[in-house]
Amino acid sequence: MNLLEEIRKIIYIKDEMLINRLFDEYHPVDIALEADELEDDELETFAHLINHENMAHLLEASEEDFSARIMAFFTDDELIDIFTHMETSIVADLLGVLSTVRRKAIFSSIKSADKVTLKMILSFDEESAGGIMTTNFIALRENLTAVEAVKKIISISPKTEIIDKIFVTDNYHRLKGIVTMRDLLVSHSDTLLSDLLEEVDFYVYGTDDQEVAANLFSKYELDILPVVNSNMAILGVITSEDIIAIIDQEHNEDMLQMHGVNADEEYDSTLFESFKSRIPWLIVNLVTAFLASSVVKGFESTISQVVVLSAAMPIVTGMGGNAGSQTLSIIITSLARGELSLKEDYKLIFKEIFLGLFEGAIIGILAAAVFVFWHHNIYLGFILFFAMILNMIIACSMGFLIPLILDKIKIDPAIASSIFLTTFTDTCGFFIFLGLATIFLPFLI
Amino acid sequence: MNLLEEIRKIIYIKDEMLINRLFDEYHPVDIALEADELEDDELETFAHLINHENMAHLLEASEEDFSARIMAFFTDDELIDIFTHMETSIVADLLGVLSTVRRKAIFSSIKSADKVTLKMILSFDEESAGGIMTTNFIALRENLTAVEAVKKIISISPKTEIIDKIFVTDNYHRLKGIVTMRDLLVSHSDTLLSDLLEEVDFYVYGTDDQEVAANLFSKYELDILPVVNSNMAILGVITSEDIIAIIDQEHNEDMLQMHGVNADEEYDSTLFESFKSRIPWLIVNLVTAFLASSVVKGFESTISQVVVLSAAMPIVTGMGGNAGSQTLSIIITSLARGELSLKEDYKLIFKEIFLGLFEGAIIGILAAAVFVFWHHNIYLGFILFFAMILNMIIACSMGFLIPLILDKIKIDPAIASSIFLTTFTDTCGFFIFLGLATIFLPFLI
Repeated sequence: MNLLEEIRKIIYIKDEMLINRLFDEYHPVDIALEADELEDDELETFAHLINHENMAHLLEASEEDFSARIMAFFTDDELIDIFTHMETSIVADLLGVLSTVRRKAIFSSIKSADKVTLKMILSFDEESAGGIMTTNFIALRENLTAVEAVKKIISISPKTEIIDKIFVTDNYHRLKGIVTMRDLLVSHSDTLLSDLLEEVDFYVYGTDDQEVAANLFSKYELDILPVVNSNMAILGVITSEDIIAIIDQEHNEDMLQMHGVNADEEYDSTLFESFKSRIPWLIVNLVTAFLASSVVKGFESTISQVVVLSAAMPIVTGMGGNAGSQTLSIIITSLARGELSLKEDYKLIFKEIFLGLFEGAIIGILAAAVFVFWHHNIYLGFILFFAMILNMIIACSMGFLIPLILDKIKIDPAIASSIFLTTFTDTCGFFIFLGLATIFLPFLI
Repeated sequence: MNLLEEIRKIIYIKDEMLINRLFDEYHPVDIALEADELEDDELETFAHLINHENMAHLLEASEEDFSARIMAFFTDDELIDIFTHMETSIVADLLGVLSTVRRKAIFSSIKSADKVTLKMILSFDEESAGGIMTTNFIALRENLTAVEAVKKIISISPKTEIIDKIFVTDNYHRLKGIVTMRDLLVSHSDTLLSDLLEEVDFYVYGTDDQEVAANLFSKYELDILPVVNSNMAILGVITSEDIIAIIDQEHNEDMLQMHGVNADEEYDSTLFESFKSRIPWLIVNLVTAFLASSVVKGFESTISQVVVLSAAMPIVTGMGGNAGSQTLSIIITSLARGELSLKEDYKLIFKEIFLGLFEGAIIGILAAAVFVFWHHNIYLGFILFFAMILNMIIACSMGFLIPLILDKIKIDPAIASSIFLTTFTDTCGFFIFLGLATIFLPFLI
């Protein structure tokens, strides 16, 4: 029996004990994934059978859509009780899923100790460092001794996940450094934290984009990153296990957006969701396609005299598109890693121009050879060869420039680059090839 | 003065103290990135000015190419001394960069205590869980008491990074569970580890692919993952900070390979490296382009009678390609996350077929309207409409099937999918559209 069947059976017999025992046997992530398949009435029964502590685990492990479905079955008071079993940063995420009215009602009933932290987290954008940090960390004053620190940590530790890195602050909550549990345990008991601490190499501001944090983790293989405010007071921390979800999300967004798909579409989205996610980009593409098509229409009289041009022209545009998207994928990947900027790396355009030249020469010669062999017309070969070179130079340099310029003017290059690129490679490709053919028409007939 | 200039100045005056002081001021990752810009003779001087401990930090933080450049400047004995300052798993990675002859020579001179671990790590594939794990972890027997355990941990801790999670084994080294430092500190001193341990929910075998480990970290937000052999003996651990590099690498590989670029090309690769990385895929694409082109050639007589077809046909193929790559990007992303398989999810093909139908209907109607308006020929509009629908159904279903089938037969779908997809959307698109036009030719003239 698989997990979903097991859940359904327990719902049918309404057995509270059995359903809560599931949480000993399965990971909440798996329970959430399966329970998302339940019908609304089944899910309601399911939700009310689970005790609040397990419900907290389930909500922590749920995707946004599923947690919205679940939370709808609870009263405000029930939710507040469930929230007491959770970390404040996750409560903040869940509040973000609720309607404004419910959010305000629940917020006003939350006990005031958590309210301050909650308010602080909610003041940050969801995709900022402050929005993804956890506030469950240990910060101690620098004038404590090692033995005092260990005592404090032991008393605090049941409430926090991270106990091996302790942040050390001055009397004004300003971050001075980090002490590891290891250093505390091996040091003399009366050593002051200020003598044990190591300076923090990296930190982010609460308002920084989550991508800034993600790139620091990737580049320097960090395990933890403190989040501070403009006075260097520590607000929270981001851990490497938290950032993995963010990195995954950013990567997948780039991958999907580059192909004109909404970042939140999943393979199992409904037909209607997928349709909504994809049709806008297809329509934008259609406009581009018509632009290219109208170039072809402009050369109808040339094509009518040398029909073989119609078989050769998609090769020029298609290969240009391929060469350009090779450059595009490199540039977008590097931009996402924060390695590249227009200002510092504009000179690399020369590399792309030469790359287009050489690629165009090789591909152009091969394509020309086939057409000369097919058509016994050497002039057609020459035209194909030169058109290929020119279009590939355009393709490679545009594949380089477009994402960098979009990035510069703060448009996500992953979303918009490929549409601009195709516009260039298609319209230029048709125009160059058919233009050359028109000029040398007497030799082709 | 930037870091590279500073390094160059120090090399010029050959100041050992200044160069080693750089390691206090800068992160080894940054020093490595900048030093990679040095000429060979500069780098040699640089390498010999740095003490072996800092050199170990530098090599740990280096990319493969750069560590190969650096290691070439040292004798085998010097390298062995540098390796003593490093974690065994990183030594294994570095040995992998050396030539077979050097690797064997160095391996035979390494002291025998490390040799066993090193041999074990080297027995695993570089991209397996065993290849990426660290062997710097603490494992204690289950019959120790909490106080004994803490004492042991304090004595071992200077040599290991991970001290907050302690693995507990039976007398045969078999993994029984995990105890956290927190639980040790708050428990009664004579409690046995066997009473404190929590079972491990997740582990991987040393031979498992690194992607299996990466997906577990992503899905369950793990902070640590034990690596075991077939007897459940613990061999090493993978930490969330280590896996970030792997996740980045896998994502970037997918992104680049989907666009026909070698996974190891960088934005600042040399012209020749980029050319080598990209030209093979362009040539493969050219073959595909000729396949499509020969379909067009087969319909030359139709086109010569209705030249406007040549302006309409790239719209059918282009839009098919776009719609197909939307599906492709979703499926490849989900496959990489291990969410999808042909066997379990084949039914989703019906969703893609309907998606193609609806997308084709909308795009087809828009495209047809424009052509009817341009050409006052309603039959051309109908042909365009139906060809668009058919080609989009093919595009969406092939965008779904191709990566799943490739995955099933153990070919990386990111590499090969888009070439197959384009082949389908281009050749089918031309064939359907020009075929329909040929059938209804009398109505078009």
